[in-house]
Amino acid sequence: MLPKRALMGPGPSDVYPEVLAAMARPTIGHLDPAFVDFMDELNELLRYAFQTQNTVTLPISAPGSAGMECAFVNLLEPGDKVVIASNGVFGGRMLENASRCGAIPVVVEFEWGTPIDPGKVEEVLKANPDAVALAFVHSETSTGVRSDAQTLCNLAHDYGCLNIVDAVTSLGGIKLLVDDWGVDAIYSGTQKCLSAPPGLSPVSFNDAAMEKLKARKTPPQSWFLDLNLLTSYWGPGAKRAYHHTAPINSLYALHEALLILKKEGLQNAWDRHSRNHQLLREGLEAMGLEFYVEEAYRLPQLNAVKVPDGVDEAAVRSFLLDEYNLEIGAGLGPLAGKIWRIGLMGASSTERHIELCLDGLKAALAKG
Amino acid sequence: MLPKRALMGPGPSDVYPEVLAAMARPTIGHLDPAFVDFMDELNELLRYAFQTQNTVTLPISAPGSAGMECAFVNLLEPGDKVVIASNGVFGGRMLENASRCGAIPVVVEFEWGTPIDPGKVEEVLKANPDAVALAFVHSETSTGVRSDAQTLCNLAHDYGCLNIVDAVTSLGGIKLLVDDWGVDAIYSGTQKCLSAPPGLSPVSFNDAAMEKLKARKTPPQSWFLDLNLLTSYWGPGAKRAYHHTAPINSLYALHEALLILKKEGLQNAWDRHSRNHQLLREGLEAMGLEFYVEEAYRLPQLNAVKVPDGVDEAAVRSFLLDEYNLEIGAGLGPLAGKIWRIGLMGASSTERHIELCLDGLKAALAKG
Repeated sequence: MLPKRALMGPGPSDVYPEVLAAMARPTIGHLDPAFVDFMDELNELLRYAFQTQNTVTLPISAPGSAGMECAFVNLLEPGDKVVIASNGVFGGRMLENASRCGAIPVVVEFEWGTPIDPGKVEEVLKANPDAVALAFVHSETSTGVRSDAQTLCNLAHDYGCLNIVDAVTSLGGIKLLVDDWGVDAIYSGTQKCLSAPPGLSPVSFNDAAMEKLKARKTPPQSWFLDLNLLTSYWGPGAKRAYHHTAPINSLYALHEALLILKKEGLQNAWDRHSRNHQLLREGLEAMGLEFYVEEAYRLPQLNAVKVPDGVDEAAVRSFLLDEYNLEIGAGLGPLAGKIWRIGLMGASSTERHIELCLDGLKAALAKG
Repeated sequence: MLPKRALMGPGPSDVYPEVLAAMARPTIGHLDPAFVDFMDELNELLRYAFQTQNTVTLPISAPGSAGMECAFVNLLEPGDKVVIASNGVFGGRMLENASRCGAIPVVVEFEWGTPIDPGKVEEVLKANPDAVALAFVHSETSTGVRSDAQTLCNLAHDYGCLNIVDAVTSLGGIKLLVDDWGVDAIYSGTQKCLSAPPGLSPVSFNDAAMEKLKARKTPPQSWFLDLNLLTSYWGPGAKRAYHHTAPINSLYALHEALLILKKEGLQNAWDRHSRNHQLLREGLEAMGLEFYVEEAYRLPQLNAVKVPDGVDEAAVRSFLLDEYNLEIGAGLGPLAGKIWRIGLMGASSTERHIELCLDGLKAALAKG
């Protein structure tokens, strides 16, 4: 039997017991008439979480990375130019996706740990009037940085581009207003601030995005992720035509997690994430630890903390796992060895988690 | 709350209670050291189910359709010619996949409800010496037909082709010997004879397949399904490098379902499926119902039964759902309205299920 951890890394986060229980409900057929109402309800809950009226709002049957791929392969045709504003691992992944679908990526790089600078993005958009899309990460999970999604979305429109927004770590944790901000295409994950198990990617596409898809000269290169086919199953108002076998039990879990979010209320969930971030911050600073990211751009749900000089960061993580059953995350890429990533996402954003983490870190650092 | 059904359609099948319970275990991190042993064990159980020693034997984090896409996008480069032997929906889906990855498909069509004729396939392979792969479906879920995978795999090699085998409905239900038969690439699903919830696709690739992948001039068009990246996480012996967040709880379920299969023993599981098929057959024939597929090619786990003249097939399915909480499947494509598809897969392959189904059908037909 695997140990039970407190999950305070970059995701997965702790899953609510009710969500785990929902996941274990008896499997039903993906074409069962009784499942249709459930699907409609799930779509509606996703619209609430995304704050959108987009008809095409559905869960992709695979993790967030597939949600990213879904956005790219549906909206970009070979030869399409896409501006990618990149400030971490997931911006880099966008480049991989753009290249592999034959698009022409123009990457605007920002230092890891800093937000995307809209001014620089505007320069690049201006210099590339043939670009059809601007893609960026709202919450960079690799660095704990929040970028100004609203400004970037508007900027895309100012230059005749669609925007593609990575909200894997945002959804349910920080303010995200798909319709108000004019987001065209967005994807998220279930295992961050929604606190469902990993495995699905909620996505939403507005009419402008769907028009770009409808106007394609060639079908999207992925059959599995082809939104034209997916919407014939997911509707709403669709004929529920068989595309692939939906991951029923994972959908039960997502549905339950979204009910919990709705019951708490989005604004309350955002406030809780913000409040707990402040609590963690006070505790860390009292221990002499520092944040990697400038205050204005910190994600409350993912805290990048500098590893003090002379501390073996991996030994600290092992100690926390072994002695506290507590997982925190390592740095990635250029930040490997330099930061820890402490997640306060969804069910892991509680005072109890913060206490455990502070106690553990104190013990680890005292020991080392 | 959704109703609890007896699932006797083309999948999902009933899920073992132990598997549902496993799925509800606390989520652990996908990079947790304790999870690595679990992954090794899961890989090994998959090797047992596939009867293979292939190093690259792992679960794709998405349903069977993604497993199919994984095989096509990794093994076929733009311009590669692939012969597709097609005798149902899933052969047609192979064509979609081949086209979308820029391969040149040569389709050999067989009537729905009949098996793939190796003689005809050989003619086409002979006429297309530049073909690099032969793809076919072992168990056609849309028609209940079994084709001779061993002969077709050998045939592929005789003509210098790799073979790609769809075993979504085969695995755990009928004889399938990946190494003995010389299968190069194979994919399956969890929601058929393994009786885990839908959502993952076990795959296996031998050295020849991996060499074709390594020799590519361009990376596979899917980042999410790129086997080079997936194997850096799934190993074995890999550095467990982060690729995407693995669907932990779905992996728990698959692991448990494979343990159950191993405990029963593959041969015993195949025998059980065969025995129960005969039982169902006797019952159906006693009612005057007929099979759609010739005896020699019937899948024991998926029974295509002719809808008697004058019977409203949809009304019968609704009656079974409403009165017996029993799901059976409809016909697809040219067989819509003409057949029912009665699944006896995994946990749904029991005498109790057969009794329920026969009782339900008797009542439905007496009523109509």
